[in-house]
Amino acid sequence: MTSTRHLHRVPSPAQTRDTPLVDRYDQVRAASLALAAPLSDEDCAIQSMPDASPVKWHLAHTSWFFETFVLAPNVAGYRAFDPAYRMLFNSYYNAVGEKHPRPQRGLLSRPSRAEVAAYRGHVDAAMRSLLQQREPLSPDVASLVVLGINHEQQHQELILTDVLHMLSHNPMLPAYCTHDGPGGASDDARPAPALAWIGFDPGLREIGHASEAFAFDNEMPRHRVYLEGFAVASRPVCNAEFLAFIADGGYRRPELWLSEGWDWVNVRGVDAPMYWQRDGGGWGQFTLRGMRMLDLAAPVCHVSLFEADAYARWAGARLPSEAEWETAAADIAIEGHFQEGGALVPRTVAGPARNDGALAQMYGDVWQWTQSPYSPYPGYRTAPGAVGEYNGKFMCNQFVLRGGSFATPRSHVRASYRNFFPAPARWQFSGFRLARDAA
Amino acid sequence: MTSTRHLHRVPSPAQTRDTPLVDRYDQVRAASLALAAPLSDEDCAIQSMPDASPVKWHLAHTSWFFETFVLAPNVAGYRAFDPAYRMLFNSYYNAVGEKHPRPQRGLLSRPSRAEVAAYRGHVDAAMRSLLQQREPLSPDVASLVVLGINHEQQHQELILTDVLHMLSHNPMLPAYCTHDGPGGASDDARPAPALAWIGFDPGLREIGHASEAFAFDNEMPRHRVYLEGFAVASRPVCNAEFLAFIADGGYRRPELWLSEGWDWVNVRGVDAPMYWQRDGGGWGQFTLRGMRMLDLAAPVCHVSLFEADAYARWAGARLPSEAEWETAAADIAIEGHFQEGGALVPRTVAGPARNDGALAQMYGDVWQWTQSPYSPYPGYRTAPGAVGEYNGKFMCNQFVLRGGSFATPRSHVRASYRNFFPAPARWQFSGFRLARDAA
Amino acid sequence: MTSTRHLHRVPSPAQTRDTPLVDRYDQVRAASLALAAPLSDEDCAIQSMPDASPVKWHLAHTSWFFETFVLAPNVAGYRAFDPAYRMLFNSYYNAVGEKHPRPQRGLLSRPSRAEVAAYRGHVDAAMRSLLQQREPLSPDVASLVVLGINHEQQHQELILTDVLHMLSHNPMLPAYCTHDGPGGASDDARPAPALAWIGFDPGLREIGHASEAFAFDNEMPRHRVYLEGFAVASRPVCNAEFLAFIADGGYRRPELWLSEGWDWVNVRGVDAPMYWQRDGGGWGQFTLRGMRMLDLAAPVCHVSLFEADAYARWAGARLPSEAEWETAAADIAIEGHFQEGGALVPRTVAGPARNDGALAQMYGDVWQWTQSPYSPYPGYRTAPGAVGEYNGKFMCNQFVLRGGSFATPRSHVRASYRNFFPAPARWQFSGFRLARDAA
Amino acid sequence: MTSTRHLHRVPSPAQTRDTPLVDRYDQVRAASLALAAPLSDEDCAIQSMPDASPVKWHLAHTSWFFETFVLAPNVAGYRAFDPAYRMLFNSYYNAVGEKHPRPQRGLLSRPSRAEVAAYRGHVDAAMRSLLQQREPLSPDVASLVVLGINHEQQHQELILTDVLHMLSHNPMLPAYCTHDGPGGASDDARPAPALAWIGFDPGLREIGHASEAFAFDNEMPRHRVYLEGFAVASRPVCNAEFLAFIADGGYRRPELWLSEGWDWVNVRGVDAPMYWQRDGGGWGQFTLRGMRMLDLAAPVCHVSLFEADAYARWAGARLPSEAEWETAAADIAIEGHFQEGGALVPRTVAGPARNDGALAQMYGDVWQWTQSPYSPYPGYRTAPGAVGEYNGKFMCNQFVLRGGSFATPRSHVRASYRNFFPAPARWQFSGFRLARDAA
Repeated sequence: MTSTRHLHRVPSPAQTRDTPLVDRYDQVRAASLALAAPLSDEDCAIQSMPDASPVKWHLAHTSWFFETFVLAPNVAGYRAFDPAYRMLFNSYYNAVGEKHPRPQRGLLSRPSRAEVAAYRGHVDAAMRSLLQQREPLSPDVASLVVLGINHEQQHQELILTDVLHMLSHNPMLPAYCTHDGPGGASDDARPAPALAWIGFDPGLREIGHASEAFAFDNEMPRHRVYLEGFAVASRPVCNAEFLAFIADGGYRRPELWLSEGWDWVNVRGVDAPMYWQRDGGGWGQFTLRGMRMLDLAAPVCHVSLFEADAYARWAGARLPSEAEWETAAADIAIEGHFQEGGALVPRTVAGPARNDGALAQMYGDVWQWTQSPYSPYPGYRTAPGAVGEYNGKFMCNQFVLRGGSFATPRSHVRASYRNFFPAPARWQFSGFRLARDAA
Repeated sequence: MTSTRHLHRVPSPAQTRDTPLVDRYDQVRAASLALAAPLSDEDCAIQSMPDASPVKWHLAHTSWFFETFVLAPNVAGYRAFDPAYRMLFNSYYNAVGEKHPRPQRGLLSRPSRAEVAAYRGHVDAAMRSLLQQREPLSPDVASLVVLGINHEQQHQELILTDVLHMLSHNPMLPAYCTHDGPGGASDDARPAPALAWIGFDPGLREIGHASEAFAFDNEMPRHRVYLEGFAVASRPVCNAEFLAFIADGGYRRPELWLSEGWDWVNVRGVDAPMYWQRDGGGWGQFTLRGMRMLDLAAPVCHVSLFEADAYARWAGARLPSEAEWETAAADIAIEGHFQEGGALVPRTVAGPARNDGALAQMYGDVWQWTQSPYSPYPGYRTAPGAVGEYNGKFMCNQFVLRGGSFATPRSHVRASYRNFFPAPARWQFSGFRLARDAA
Repeated sequence: MTSTRHLHRVPSPAQTRDTPLVDRYDQVRAASLALAAPLSDEDCAIQSMPDASPVKWHLAHTSWFFETFVLAPNVAGYRAFDPAYRMLFNSYYNAVGEKHPRPQRGLLSRPSRAEVAAYRGHVDAAMRSLLQQREPLSPDVASLVVLGINHEQQHQELILTDVLHMLSHNPMLPAYCTHDGPGGASDDARPAPALAWIGFDPGLREIGHASEAFAFDNEMPRHRVYLEGFAVASRPVCNAEFLAFIADGGYRRPELWLSEGWDWVNVRGVDAPMYWQRDGGGWGQFTLRGMRMLDLAAPVCHVSLFEADAYARWAGARLPSEAEWETAAADIAIEGHFQEGGALVPRTVAGPARNDGALAQMYGDVWQWTQSPYSPYPGYRTAPGAVGEYNGKFMCNQFVLRGGSFATPRSHVRASYRNFFPAPARWQFSGFRLARDAA
Repeated sequence: MTSTRHLHRVPSPAQTRDTPLVDRYDQVRAASLALAAPLSDEDCAIQSMPDASPVKWHLAHTSWFFETFVLAPNVAGYRAFDPAYRMLFNSYYNAVGEKHPRPQRGLLSRPSRAEVAAYRGHVDAAMRSLLQQREPLSPDVASLVVLGINHEQQHQELILTDVLHMLSHNPMLPAYCTHDGPGGASDDARPAPALAWIGFDPGLREIGHASEAFAFDNEMPRHRVYLEGFAVASRPVCNAEFLAFIADGGYRRPELWLSEGWDWVNVRGVDAPMYWQRDGGGWGQFTLRGMRMLDLAAPVCHVSLFEADAYARWAGARLPSEAEWETAAADIAIEGHFQEGGALVPRTVAGPARNDGALAQMYGDVWQWTQSPYSPYPGYRTAPGAVGEYNGKFMCNQFVLRGGSFATPRSHVRASYRNFFPAPARWQFSGFRLARDAA
């Protein structure tokens, strides 16, 4: 069945488009600082692996983005805070010039966190002055500001994934934050609702972004795809289900794994999702809220594409393609936790299943791996200049994830949103939802 | 325009289906030995990198395939030539059991080449006896025999790619074979014909294998795809064109490259296709026929997906998707060299362009990279058991190549054929053809 | 000639032995904190390579040493500051139990620098209480306290070598400290004094530590060695001389290098001492006092054993053995800078040579590589228990350095002192002095 | 006690000095071919690790040595067999020019073994003609010929160590040679004789080579060393003793190991000597004669310096210094197997101990690790030119072994002979003998 009712409609990004740009700017800038607030200077300086960056670097680089792409080219007389930062906080834009090597971001004790805060203040003052000027911004500049806002939101999620990774390497397992807010240890001992399948008829569909609202270039152009009939699961795979996969020898059965995944399992000795830790007979999970008992009804999190794919094969199912996911997401999509809520863990969905065809936890909670390699859409064009390096050059050996996580700002995600990571990546808040061919 | 005339129709694989299976078997087995004939025992024993295998290993492993999947389970009383070979020549079939580690294939001086020849004889005798028995083979067994024949053809091409790689590491640059047959140094100084674009209308297409003839499981099921309008080039990119890319700084301009490709270029110091060597003002190319002057009108060969993609971006074009390629291949497709011809190099196509919309060198000569990651078709199912490991488990971080090369048996390739290699691979006979969106 | 006059006699370590132990303890503990004082919390948290440690780690580990070896076993009722520290700050003592992996010391944002300061305070209070008790310490405990004091002095030098290494990876090249004290940029443009040779007759000598004063176990027992006649240079090789080696192609001439050194030069692309940087036509050197013009009359610093050995071969000389060095050091030995002086760079010795046979800069300024592999002396015994791991287990693939550097406390070094590092190490304050066989 | 009787005196190398040089040349060249005779072309082509070389390479390189250092500079009109070989078979002589990279020696299928045989014939003809000419050779040329002969003897041992390593990587464990000659599986079930200690007084000794006979430059000059009193064991440590070390947890007790050795044990998972393989309750050992039951009374073989050192510490002893070993070797030294005997395994010494102070198996059987790093003797000078690269440049991070093995030609070894390998090396025929300080 293909439901058309929408119990919990995804709010259109357009809803936030009436907010003055300067307010949206201020809000996102404040949110980044708020995420860093529980952390010490030392917490903010350390880089725990080449794929992760120090929090201080995220705070500086997001400012660099506005300085380099908005202020320097468009504000007459703008003075860079420090000319050395142009190289120091360039992430990967070859067109901007030299870059400080990514694996060495953690070697920079200077500029200090206080200096980075001053840098943020300098950029904020110039940005506010630009955004509050009488004459309206040119569309090009406005769209760069919006890009910068969305860029900073992406780094907010990375601040949380990277700090969790760093803290996990400390034998004392310190929590990023402890509180009793939503998503505290579930006192709801009920299991997750039974998994149901929501079916979709074959046919020519459209996916991709079309509206006036902001979207990244990789979500465009909107285009037709032909889909065979398929079904997707009513909710993500939960921890209790993943435990059954482990108990059934899932990590020891080569027939379940992609060849590269099987090598990965064996070379790294993987036998559980990242951050899981055996605790007597049970399992604990290291989270931003510290070490907690594994929440059986919550979605499995911190799995690689390899693990998601192997689980799906074990379950007689498969991962959805991104076109299937996006098609399904137009249906009754129920949301989980987002960054704004401050839960810092996925929602626990317990109790009996709904029978209205709703797709639970379709947005928020955990990013959902798809089976789709990250490729350009037909007719995809990158923007000219350095900003064109934002997305297109990464379309190789990565897989698409959809839907956002509890660390994603709610205003940031949408049905067409394409996140992407290499198959072995696990330090993101990544889970998955099953799909299957129509019977 | 979308032509429907077919000047040189691709011969249907069905044409060879009336040949008795035992003859097809004998023919393919003889062809493998013929490829090894110019080589010494030492040539056949050496492994020049983990991705390549010794010729002796290819000769043994193709026999192992028949022994393991056809003879052992289906011939009562069959005695394995040597029980140790079950592990020794298992390439990657986890369901068969232990495997000798791939990077150590070159450490095996024993069994000797003569012993491997005896192994082949042992398997051949048993296979002939099976194939010549009065009662017809069960369809399952017959299809395993056909799979084994096609499998051996794949390894024939690998014998040539791997021996070229091995010889290229010898400072004396010995030729695999020297002869004056077709494809000798071109005495035709004319350039390649001007490149034309053959257009195709948007619409719902079908790709994949459907007929009764043999195809690998990864070519199925045949299914619908929606394609926007596109055009493909009338011939592959030739060496003269690739030289222009180099001269224009192609290897030094990051904006042309995928991010992973740019890293690859810089870490490895790549500045020309593999096996090219500067020779005074010009270029030589190491080939199976030894070091030769670069043939300007011949298709560029031994490039990675990264180089093909960067060239395409430089040329204001892109690589075709595999669906586009397969759609175009149903058109007027002209063939190049195949293994049977013994040329050992791509054909040189010189002189004026045709104006009939033909796609030159669509089959043979060089494998053509596509922009398509190697993924399962909708509804794809692997075979049960070990044979199911043939294709499916490699559908990750590889790209599809189409059309075959001068080292591919003509009877082996077809429009739906999907070859696949990782993006950096260059030791295959890999080139590419441009595509672009419809105007 | 073998002079017996002593213009500047090395102060006997015994001179400091009358200072009450508690005062010596307090002094060394305060000195460590003083070294960290110019640094931010972030400076103290970062580890720039596996061989270096964060400053915070040094501050904690030196406290751990007293807690683990003095307080825990000898003070009834002593409560460890935090039981987790036993593992966290164990450097390499297998007998103590688990160790936090050395390359991950820089991943620990917690304990914070403030917590480490509290840890130091906790240990200091207990140590003072122990050292001020009425009844005298048992000789075993007293000797462990003295060992801990000397251990902390070693880590003081490492604080400086490691922080210099960390700062050198910052493109902004921040100085550890800037001041106008001794060792400021030399306004003395005179070259170093001419190098003279001080000769020593062949004969049976004694080396090693013998007195009652403290020495490490690796300096004992004092024993006889037979030395052929030899001569040592009157001062270390200076920067001007090393520049001549470079100008003469020293880094490009394989005949000057040990085989392993030649590989090291080529794999790493070494063409100058560490921290040297070409600056127009001249050279700068990154130091604890920031980037400075290379001081031509100062001893060359930050060279590997390989470079010292190659230079010596180029100069028609060789490095001294440690027995030769120690024999010479009993002669007229003049001192350079030590940690206490706060110069943070070697002394510049300019002007005419003395003609009294004195060995300039024999102590302090730069550690002097010898040709001697670090091996046990005849009859060497390690202490029982964990403390026995201090020195002996490192007697493999390291070379001995002698004399101390400007970062070594003056009270720490003596003629028999054996420092040791692997041949490629350069981040220490390491230079060298030439020797040669008697004519 | 220091015995002066000599039951089995080591034959002076001088005894062979009356043999005409051409006969010595012919003899050594024939011996190399005889060692390769049991091997196939494939056996001779493969390189199993960068430290080992293909047999074919050894056969070619030893000819290259004569061609490059004797024939080319000294024989007017000599024509090199193939100019390409100058680079191809240069091992490590930078002064000769370019070298083919060592790790790629196994990539050379050409020149074939037959071509290498022809190369040997070409060199042999020219050498014989030189050696048989009427006028005597100049001393310089004669000494290069003798160096070449000794060089080829060294490579003979390497042929055996390298082929054993290569065969050990074949899961079928083929034997190099099977025969029933001496050293067949011991039918003598008696244990090794009880270990006795032979004592030596302290005093000034002389070590190093002095006579007119040939020795390598690293054995010179003869010089004085002062030795404290010491004792050495009457025989090498045997397999039964090493089993007791294993049974006592020797590989799991860090206090027994050098720090670098402990890392090596853990990173590589070492738990027994190389080539040992558990076989039910017992142990087998892979040898040149195939897999054999471990011979309990034979010397332990294929241990690293780390294992020898750890065993010695476990046994309350230590390894001898090379000066101690050489001093002891002047005593009653009994020989084991050498290459000429063809045993291919160490001698089994069973039965009751002698009580005449003899040092059993002091020469032959297994090389004996010493505690001495490989360093230059006082006054050591390398020869000028390329030949000077023979020994001196390797005096870094290696340890000295003494006494020869069952694979060493008897005529090749002597008391002053210094072999050297890095501490982790195990593929040589390396064992050890204990020493201790005088009581």
